[in-house]
Amino acid sequence: MKTILVLGAGLSSSSLIRYFLENAQENNWNVRIVDRDLELVKQKINGHPNGVALTFNALNAEERRPEIEKADLVISMLPARFHVDVAEDCIELKTNLITPSYISPEMRALDQKAKDAGIVIMNEIGVDPGIDHMSAMKIIHEIQDKGGKLTSFKSFTGGLIAPESDNNPWNYKFTWNPRNVVLAGQGGAASFIRNGEYKYIPYNRLFGRLDYMSVEGYGDFVGYANRDSLSYRETYGLQDIPTIFRGTLRRPGYCEAWNVFIELGMTDDTYSMVGTEELTPRGFMNAFLPYNSNLTVEEKMKAFLREDRMHLYEKFEWLGLFKKEPLVGLEDASPAQVLQKILVDKLSLDEGDKDMLVMIHEFEYELNGERSKITSHMVNIGEDQVYTSMSNTVGLPAAICGKMILTGTLKSTGVTLPIQREVYTPILNELDEYGISFLEKELVLS
Amino acid sequence: MKTILVLGAGLSSSSLIRYFLENAQENNWNVRIVDRDLELVKQKINGHPNGVALTFNALNAEERRPEIEKADLVISMLPARFHVDVAEDCIELKTNLITPSYISPEMRALDQKAKDAGIVIMNEIGVDPGIDHMSAMKIIHEIQDKGGKLTSFKSFTGGLIAPESDNNPWNYKFTWNPRNVVLAGQGGAASFIRNGEYKYIPYNRLFGRLDYMSVEGYGDFVGYANRDSLSYRETYGLQDIPTIFRGTLRRPGYCEAWNVFIELGMTDDTYSMVGTEELTPRGFMNAFLPYNSNLTVEEKMKAFLREDRMHLYEKFEWLGLFKKEPLVGLEDASPAQVLQKILVDKLSLDEGDKDMLVMIHEFEYELNGERSKITSHMVNIGEDQVYTSMSNTVGLPAAICGKMILTGTLKSTGVTLPIQREVYTPILNELDEYGISFLEKELVLS
Repeated sequence: MKTILVLGAGLSSSSLIRYFLENAQENNWNVRIVDRDLELVKQKINGHPNGVALTFNALNAEERRPEIEKADLVISMLPARFHVDVAEDCIELKTNLITPSYISPEMRALDQKAKDAGIVIMNEIGVDPGIDHMSAMKIIHEIQDKGGKLTSFKSFTGGLIAPESDNNPWNYKFTWNPRNVVLAGQGGAASFIRNGEYKYIPYNRLFGRLDYMSVEGYGDFVGYANRDSLSYRETYGLQDIPTIFRGTLRRPGYCEAWNVFIELGMTDDTYSMVGTEELTPRGFMNAFLPYNSNLTVEEKMKAFLREDRMHLYEKFEWLGLFKKEPLVGLEDASPAQVLQKILVDKLSLDEGDKDMLVMIHEFEYELNGERSKITSHMVNIGEDQVYTSMSNTVGLPAAICGKMILTGTLKSTGVTLPIQREVYTPILNELDEYGISFLEKELVLS
Repeated sequence: MKTILVLGAGLSSSSLIRYFLENAQENNWNVRIVDRDLELVKQKINGHPNGVALTFNALNAEERRPEIEKADLVISMLPARFHVDVAEDCIELKTNLITPSYISPEMRALDQKAKDAGIVIMNEIGVDPGIDHMSAMKIIHEIQDKGGKLTSFKSFTGGLIAPESDNNPWNYKFTWNPRNVVLAGQGGAASFIRNGEYKYIPYNRLFGRLDYMSVEGYGDFVGYANRDSLSYRETYGLQDIPTIFRGTLRRPGYCEAWNVFIELGMTDDTYSMVGTEELTPRGFMNAFLPYNSNLTVEEKMKAFLREDRMHLYEKFEWLGLFKKEPLVGLEDASPAQVLQKILVDKLSLDEGDKDMLVMIHEFEYELNGERSKITSHMVNIGEDQVYTSMSNTVGLPAAICGKMILTGTLKSTGVTLPIQREVYTPILNELDEYGISFLEKELVLS
């Protein structure tokens, strides 16, 4: 009997836990799940005989180490900053580890130690990062196998609201941590390379410089640049590629309107506004608009938008930004915190709403003097509010990878991520059975 | 015989040192001046019998303490972050201290110790801060003395180029640290209050929201908001004033064009660009403009500017931003460092150029049901490239204050700044003799 230890039973662990339990009897697995909230764990286990609900502080090494020692595999769904501590325990106790998070420099430094311990520490195996790596590397390898030379790689991912639940003028609802959405893009310029030219987009223009695309049956999307596209050259072994770009998907109109929040300064998280305990949405709006005693807040907003952006006005009005009822529960709040409060009130999932994960890759390559373009996209709709698309796409790759480690299919050791064929091929194949599938199209350009 | 110790003989110390030496024989002063650059000190002393040139590391407590012990007064012209260390020495050795810099919280915390030691630590006694405090408090006190109630205070200061030396389309040259000019306004929103409404301007809009004003004989100016206007309510004892605003002056056109640099991301100092050792101004410009293989860099810039800002184009062209000759001496440079290099090449003072310091205050008050407005302004032109207006306006207030301390005219102790009548009245009077004079006008509004 093999033992799996899952650290954290929050929203993003639902599909992962279900997968392990559904496959537990066949594989003879014992699935031990810990969370501070014992009820939550019990709910997720739902009486399954192979599941064991635990509660202790997984951030405390003394409390988690006996459980790690018992396990053959640990899945850390803790916040990313705790992964290195867990990894050090796993190395010492010779237990394999999976995390869905980006490899930090500190994690990378543990590579040799993990190899020496004979364990694998698999990271970046959720959706973004995770499914993006695997589905991109599959096509990159296919192009390279036939002798093609990649000239361009663009990749976009977005966590969105499913079309059937899309009923507001932003065409968006929070399907993930709202704070991350409000702060998206802050902390430095977005950098990428296009046709050999390095490009930098500052935060104040980030949501104003967009790529437009559409997916058959799902309509139009726009992509804004992620902060770091350049490091993917190294990750994917494409050091000399003249164009590489990674972005985040939204529905058309969202980004243009979001850029107005940024231009006004409403996403700033670095200072506290005066008097937020009595602030109204209208007062919040007014604090960022130029003073003019002759205009209403609505008129000042229209003047700020200018004629060419007036079509965005209804989005702001719909959010209730001109309302005079005080916001409650905000004290010494930053602009970003006030904005988040206003947005969460209007853009949260309603009962029965489903989310949607969209991923679009675009590759260009040259072969025998011919230029070709491959597009590959995946659209996945969530099952309900527990087994969301976000939960499925984050949890299933990690869970399938876990099965491969426990069954001995995955043999590599050290600190790694899923970019090798022998890792991504079986995972992509099994994801396909779960409806997480990529559609590819190829087009000769010239 | 009294001993004055001046720490630092750089550009901003020239006028201060001259004042002390010119008044040394009459007052029986011994003026000891230290700088790492002994030649610089000798040059400033110019053989004056009461001057002593010293060279040691003033940042090293062991080296400076024997000199502080000998002195009756220390003037610290060191970078602001060293003032607290010097102040602690001065307290221990019971020597008075003057600094032109803002009072830090750490400096404020030394108040009681300074009082116990019987010394004064006078801060914020240069131009901004310094002359602004004194000239504003004079009028604030006059209004309050006659029973008036202040309803609005706006204050602007700018270090600019004198009209006779103003010969470029930016109507600007660096008369002070260029790095501070390039980074001006970064690090948080500008906040102020207007007619009881708190207002916040994010960095990306800072140079786009301007106040317009003119000074008879000197033409038009615009002001952009300083980051912190609100704390001046406390400093000036105007806690309930409905409008308070502090800003920086430039000539019309400068700020609009500068905002384009900010919007493009060219003032960012948080990351290194790729390949700056081979970068051309044209390549620098292009890195921030949206990719378009059909347009030249000039055309992309024009598209970015839009029709309504096209009048700014010549300012960018004049700076040489479209030139193809590589910049030299830049390695792993941030956008702000590259921009600074380009600007310093074009906007530095030429031989014979003179600088200009402009300060404009606007006060509104109510008295007996009548609303009135007082404006007070000062324009000062530098003598030459050593005794610049910046050097005179920073150094003379500190020097005059030093004389008051040494002659016993200034009797207060503790950590303070020049906002009391008994401090600012004699200083403003003597500054007037040096041509640093305010012109006041009063106007009944209703």
